[in-house]
Amino acid sequence: MKARVHVMLKDGVLDPQGEAVKSALGHMGFEGVGAVRQGKVIELDLAATDKAAAEAEVKAMCEKLLANTVIEKYTVEIA
Amino acid sequence: MKARVHVMLKDGVLDPQGEAVKSALGHMGFEGVGAVRQGKVIELDLAATDKAAAEAEVKAMCEKLLANTVIEKYTVEIA
Repeated sequence: MKARVHVMLKDGVLDPQGEAVKSALGHMGFEGVGAVRQGKVIELDLAATDKAAAEAEVKAMCEKLLANTVIEKYTVEIA
Repeated sequence: MKARVHVMLKDGVLDPQGEAVKSALGHMGFEGVGAVRQGKVIELDLAATDKAAAEAEVKAMCEKLLANTVIEKYTVEIA
């Protein structure tokens, strides 16, 4: 079973990486680019076969390791 | 119009971040975690209103700035 986790800075938290990308795109001539946010994506292969159990386990991984929940939000997709 | 870009290391390219996450999860007691790959996700707000044009523009951004196509692959989603 595969899981995909997105970890993004929460809305309102300054995102210097996103700002740098936005600025660089502007300098390169790409127009009409508004807000840019950059985050992490983590893909995991899991031995679990139960979708609900896998989702609960991955959420626990996010809370304990993958995301800093003070400033980051995460979403979990199980496929 | 919003675009979401995923940039991942190509298959076969060593992913030290993913290996570190896998190792840390193992040490924390999460069992049954196989391969882990970590990449970037970039969310952009675009002024473009035509979906095909927006997708073409974002692919150009990936080729020129967002991805290192020697070792990274990317996918573009337009929403």
